[in-house]
Amino acid sequence: MTTVIGLVAAFLSTISFLPQAIKVVTTKKTDGISLVMYAIFTMGVLLWALYGFMTMQLPVIIANVITLVFAVIILFYTWQNVMKEKRRTK
Amino acid sequence: MTTVIGLVAAFLSTISFLPQAIKVVTTKKTDGISLVMYAIFTMGVLLWALYGFMTMQLPVIIANVITLVFAVIILFYTWQNVMKEKRRTK
Repeated sequence: MTTVIGLVAAFLSTISFLPQAIKVVTTKKTDGISLVMYAIFTMGVLLWALYGFMTMQLPVIIANVITLVFAVIILFYTWQNVMKEKRRTK
Repeated sequence: MTTVIGLVAAFLSTISFLPQAIKVVTTKKTDGISLVMYAIFTMGVLLWALYGFMTMQLPVIIANVITLVFAVIILFYTWQNVMKEKRRTK
């Protein structure tokens, strides 16, 4: 039972970033999104993936590599819009 | 070394939600934020906290209870704005 809860938790917390990645790619809107959050979060997920490699835990590697892909997409679009906004207000 | 990487990963992926929570509370802006993401993510984090209790892993409990607080704040503001938008466009 515990393992099932852990797997479902890992699945939900990983897949949850897919709708956010789709939303920023399709709408290009990132107004409310915190660039600082995704910068820190991406580093955290990168370290989780590294931790998974070092401890040879495949679920940790897979979950965090997938989350990393979504996080980088969201980070890229958010960063792009922040840069545009800065150039506009110079 | 591995433990340190795991702890830093846990710290970063937990604390990363703080700037997003602060941003939605101060700006009330949630345009780019995916309501679906935070609904799924909040369930995932809730299950992670439950997993931590069931396996008596204090770091898992602490990290996910903290993340849960931030996620619920972000989810609440995003949901509130989505409801406002729906009423406005009726």
